[in-house]
This record gives sequence, C-alpha cells and structure tokens, in this order.
Amino acid sequence: MAEHPDKSPLAPAGFPEMAAVAGVRLASAATGMKYQGRDDVLFASFVDGTTVAGTLTKSKTSSAPVDWCRRHLPLGEANGLIVNAGNANAFTGGAGTQAVEKCVEAVADQLACRPSRIFAASTGVIGEPLPFDMIIDALPEAAERLVQSDAASWKQAAAAILTTDTFAKGSSRIATIGDVSVNISGIAKGSGMIAPDMATMLSFIVTDAAIPADVLSTLTSAGVAKSFNAITVDSDTSTSDTVLVFATGSVDGQAKISSADDPLISDFTAQLNAVMTDLAHQVVRDGEGASKFIEITVSGAENDAAARTIALAIANSPLVKTAIAGEDANWGRIVMAIGKSGEAADRDKLAIQIGGIDVARNGAVVDGYDEAPVAEHVKGQDIVIGADVGIGDGQATVWTCDLTHGYISINADYRS
Amino acid sequence: MAEHPDKSPLAPAGFPEMAAVAGVRLASAATGMKYQGRDDVLFASFVDGTTVAGTLTKSKTSSAPVDWCRRHLPLGEANGLIVNAGNANAFTGGAGTQAVEKCVEAVADQLACRPSRIFAASTGVIGEPLPFDMIIDALPEAAERLVQSDAASWKQAAAAILTTDTFAKGSSRIATIGDVSVNISGIAKGSGMIAPDMATMLSFIVTDAAIPADVLSTLTSAGVAKSFNAITVDSDTSTSDTVLVFATGSVDGQAKISSADDPLISDFTAQLNAVMTDLAHQVVRDGEGASKFIEITVSGAENDAAARTIALAIANSPLVKTAIAGEDANWGRIVMAIGKSGEAADRDKLAIQIGGIDVARNGAVVDGYDEAPVAEHVKGQDIVIGADVGIGDGQATVWTCDLTHGYISINADYRS
Repeated sequence: MAEHPDKSPLAPAGFPEMAAVAGVRLASAATGMKYQGRDDVLFASFVDGTTVAGTLTKSKTSSAPVDWCRRHLPLGEANGLIVNAGNANAFTGGAGTQAVEKCVEAVADQLACRPSRIFAASTGVIGEPLPFDMIIDALPEAAERLVQSDAASWKQAAAAILTTDTFAKGSSRIATIGDVSVNISGIAKGSGMIAPDMATMLSFIVTDAAIPADVLSTLTSAGVAKSFNAITVDSDTSTSDTVLVFATGSVDGQAKISSADDPLISDFTAQLNAVMTDLAHQVVRDGEGASKFIEITVSGAENDAAARTIALAIANSPLVKTAIAGEDANWGRIVMAIGKSGEAADRDKLAIQIGGIDVARNGAVVDGYDEAPVAEHVKGQDIVIGADVGIGDGQATVWTCDLTHGYISINADYRS
Repeated sequence: MAEHPDKSPLAPAGFPEMAAVAGVRLASAATGMKYQGRDDVLFASFVDGTTVAGTLTKSKTSSAPVDWCRRHLPLGEANGLIVNAGNANAFTGGAGTQAVEKCVEAVADQLACRPSRIFAASTGVIGEPLPFDMIIDALPEAAERLVQSDAASWKQAAAAILTTDTFAKGSSRIATIGDVSVNISGIAKGSGMIAPDMATMLSFIVTDAAIPADVLSTLTSAGVAKSFNAITVDSDTSTSDTVLVFATGSVDGQAKISSADDPLISDFTAQLNAVMTDLAHQVVRDGEGASKFIEITVSGAENDAAARTIALAIANSPLVKTAIAGEDANWGRIVMAIGKSGEAADRDKLAIQIGGIDVARNGAVVDGYDEAPVAEHVKGQDIVIGADVGIGDGQATVWTCDLTHGYISINADYRS
C-alpha cells in the first residue's frame, strides 16, 4: 500500500462540526487486517424502526457485500451497519458470499436482530479473500464502545472507512419538518475509481427524521443522481460503490410523512441533497492527484440525459483533464470531447465559456478573443466550464478534477 | 509546442523499406506555419483513374477537411491529396470551410483536375484559423518536386505529417492478384487523442492495384474495424481522424475485380489488412508516454460488438493502464473494468489470463495462484491480457498502451 501522507490541496480546512443524530450509535475498531495504527472497521447500531434506502454500483462484477445489500434493501429495515476498509471482498467467489454472511450474522448476534437488518460494505483490494474472522473478532469490543453519535464519533467513523483518501469526509445539515428540527449527518470515502453509475464510492448518511422506506428510497435516488452520480475522477467504476441512507425516526413530535412530494419535507429534501452534494464534492476534491476542482455545465442539449453524457465526456477526457492540470485554457480539447460524446451537437452553434468568460460562440473563437483573463482563471483552484451545444433545452452539471502526475504516482503502485 | 526529442521505447528499429507504388507521385514542403526546420505539408498526385475509399471520424465536431472528404468520397475518384501538420482547421467556422476550399482549388489548379478529386486532411491545434495562404504559397515548388513514390519519398511523406509523434510510421506489403504482383504502401500519424470511432489518426495508403471504388470501400471499412478502430491510447477521439486508401490501377495485366468477395483478391485483402494493422500498432507504440504495448482479447461475450466494448473498457481504464505502467499484475482492476463496461458478463464464470497464464477462473483467483511468472510478464514491453466473460461466443482484440507520467508531461503543456 503506497503511503499518501499529503492532504489534497483541495481539501476543506478541517472536518466539519457534525450534528448528533438520535437513534444511531457508532464505534470503530482496528482489525490489523491491512493497516497498522488505525481503525479499519465501522460498526453502527440503529434503533428499531429505522428505515433504510440506498443506491448500489451498476457494475456487472459487484462485490459480495453489494449483492447482500441489493437483496435486503427492498425490506427497508435496518438495525446495523458493518463496513471494513482494506479488502473489498469483490471477485472472491462463493467464499466472498460466505464471508459477508458470517460478518453480518456476527453483527446481528451482537445487536440481537435479524441478519436481514444488517447492511455491509467493503472497500479495498479486489480478489483477495476477506479475512472475515478478524472483523468478527473485533466486534465484541467494538460493541462495548458503541456511543450515541456525536461530533467526535462521526469523525472517528469517517476516518475508519478511508483507503487512499487523504482526508476524512463528513457533512451535516439541520432541516425542519413542519416545526420540528431534524439532523442529517453523513460520511463518505473515495478518491479514485470514481465514476457513475453508481455510486462511485461509499457513503453512509443518517437522519433522526421519521421517513418511510419507500419515501426515503425516492429521495435517495433523486439526490444521488445529482450528486454522487454527477462526479467523476477517472471514469472507472468500483465494484463496491454503495450509498446508504438511514432514518431512525428518533426525533420527537414529527408529523407523519407519506409521500416524497409532501411539501412538509421540501426542506428536508433540500438539506439531504446538500449533504450528498457536499460529500460528493469532497470525494472529487480528494481525487487522486487532484490539483483543480472542475465544474462542467452543459446546456442546449437534446435533453438532460444527453447533456449529462456530454458533460461526462468532457469531464472524463484525459486531454481536457491534463490541459487543466497544465493551466492551459485549451478549449479546443473541450470541442473535441463534445464531438466524441456521440450526442447531438450543432458544431456551428457551439458556445464555450471558461470561468464565465465567452471563449467560443457560433462554432468559432469569439472575435478579438483575449486569452489573458481565461488564463488567469485556469491558474486558480476552482475551474468552471460551460458549453452550449445549440440543440435543445437539456442541461446538466458534473464535477471532476484534473489529471496530474500525482494520479499516476498513486495508481502505478497502489497494490504493492 | 512541447518538444518530444525522445523516441518512444516501443518504436520499431527503423522506418521500413517501403515498396514503390506506381501511379502516385509524392512531395513534401515546409510552410513555416508552426514548425521550424521540418516539412509540414504532404502533397500527392495520382494518375487518372485512381479510385479512393476512406473512413472518417464520427466526431460531431469534425474538422473542415473531414467534411470536405465526406462530401467527395462517394464519387470515389482521386487525383490529389494535400495534408498539413500543425493546425487541424477544426472548429474554425465558415473560415475553416473556405480555407479547405482554397487549398483544394490551388492543388486542383496545379494538377489540372476537378477540386472534387482532391482530398485533404489537417492535424494539429483546434480552433485556430488555418493560414491556408502559407500552404498555397508552398504548392508550386512542391509540385516541381513531385517524384514517383519510392522508399525515400515515402519516408519523407511520413515525416511531413507528424505532430507529437516521436517516429515516422510506414508499412508496406506485396500482394498477388492472380499471377500479378501489386504493391501496397501506407503511412500514418498519431500518438494521442487516439480512440475509436473512427479513425483515431491520419493514415494514407496507396496501392497500384486496380480496385473499383465500391470494392475498395468495402475492404477499407472491414480493415479499419479490426485495425485503426481497434486501438486506443487515451479514449479521446480527434475531430480530424481520417483513413484514405487509394488504388491507382497502374499495375499491368491485373485481372478485373468486381466484388470484395472475389477469391482473386483474398491475398490483396489480407495484405491490405496487414498494412492497416501494422500502422495501427505503430500508432499505439507511439502513444504519448507509452512504455508498454498491451493486447487485450475478450472472449465469451454476448457477441463480437459486446466483446469489443468490454475490451475497450479494459483498454481505456486509467486504473488498468496505470497498473501496467507500474508493472503490477493487478487483475482486480481488469475485473472492475469488465464490470463497468455495461455488457453482460457472468461474474461467477469470469476467467482472466495475463501473459497466457491463468490468473482467475470461475469468478475467483485460481487455486494456488503463483504471481511470480505473471509479475515477470508485466515487466516486459509487450503485455497480453485475456478475459473470458462466460456468456456467449463474441470475441474481439484491441490494442492500447499504458498510462505514464510521460502522458501527463506531454499533454499538460502541448499547446503552450
């Protein structure tokens, strides 16, 4: 395992102050499976009545824990969560399935609940058998250490699930449902192998609001589409991508919610989306080797899906990403990426903006183009690219980072 | 323009001995448009009766010369070719269309033929107006220097069309049609922005065989699919990709060909494909920053197209490419790439070979896996990856190179 001691230059100033969420207890533990001197297991316990929803990788070679979650998410009930870092338990055949079952059963024993209410995620190397006994051995002590979630335990939890990440990722918002205040706190990990669909990483979000599982599922899918599924680091999709959202219902006096359209939860929805977007941005900001955070908005496409395809073609283009790394306002490469996306674009109406400055319009560079302010913009850390392809009303925004020597250094020696 | 003085470590020992092709005259010239001390224009003249076929980029933002070729290829008749390096004349609006027309008319004047019989290609920076007068000014002298194609003039021609390439690319084969011997010689350029479809670069191939335009078109499409469209360097597709094949018909006594299925041209077809494959491999071997040549064969897919999609997902995965660069036999990343391709794959039947050695079978690492010989293989320059996805009979082979610090260095400062 290569060491990545340096925090990403795009990292937030520090880990955020996380709101306590009633109804969830957290603990982390160290198995020694792969890492020395750090926790590598997250263990969470939820009160009875907790609902759960999630979005899982679309990879055809999904990991054993992803398969487990896919099977049990439709039940919508959760009592526990077990996450380990260092071994993905992916492409491990029948032994992988057994490993996740053994872990989940051990957690269910600790929490005296049905295994179907335990959710699991693993991240790390693919294809090596998961030494699940090391996780199970760590459980009893971790169970004793379970504490009501608070700022400190959230921070520990966020740290326990990291792999090549250079900083722990958390986000927290307070929402109102009617006149009741509810908390939403979430953590994420991910820095490479980040691309839709879905979900580009691990993220676990918990609220003390009471939200029925079907409503939570609708909110989660919609939120993920505009956050975790709108980011890309290297176009690679993990076998383990998992976003889980838990609602403990532990808040007092909240009005009952029965539909995702209920105006009562519009603020909740907005704050949940804000947590997801914040976490997704942090993943990009920890993109392996990233030195620039890039926002790409495509408009004028045939529809929103086409706009997203074009935006991702730009975001995933190695030539665009290296140009930004080189602080080169090379908009010709943006044109190239739009062209290769396969979606309809009117070359002779194409318009491109960099840093809000018109660079090209009607299929050619603007008259009297002054590169100086654009060159100044691309020297910054936050790069904004806009492209209008002149066909319709479709629009989408995605986020990515640049492609640097750091990415090569990290990934050419990740496993050794 | 960054300098790339070092020849790719994957380059062939030298430029090949090229067969003279009757009926084509070649010249190159220096406009001084971008490069100093080298030729940057290729000018070719073909005898009357020459047929032409081609495959052009599918980019929605194709260049003005690509548009010109697309318009005139259906006529199937060629008298001349003009190619310049350094400026792609792409995304140059109406001025770009005029620029290609002016160039083509000037060449047609020199050759006393219709402009529709002149083909054009440009490669280089996108979005800057083509100073076409510099090309036109260089034409009369170039026309005087036109010589019957021979080993020396082919080598000059190959050198005149390069941009970031580190070596000139040529390939030549002799074929028999009945008892008549015909020559096929071709050149190519390309080292980045190399991905299907089509055609990933510029390539111009000429034969002195007599092949009707419709037959030549069938042969060209089929050949390109398994050569130029089966390579990728960085997944980016140029706005200028062009493969043109010319048949001068200057050989004596050749039997008339009227169908691509005619057994008489089976050897010709094989040799034409060999030239295309050789040139395509050379482009990969000159991939920006490449240190390894990688052949990826996928079998067991739903059909050949699915196999190609999966093979390209592996070939374009930054995580696979950096692992190879790091000489890490990280087959887990191959599993990941297969999973993200979106094509059907039976995870539990998946088999992977590296260097012909079984690594994984039935969805898990092989019993008693010995990494030593695999590690030895990935230390070499030619890497062979095989994957069987356990669904059907579909098969495809693609070629790519690794992703190294060299790629970043070249592309982070290409334009400046």
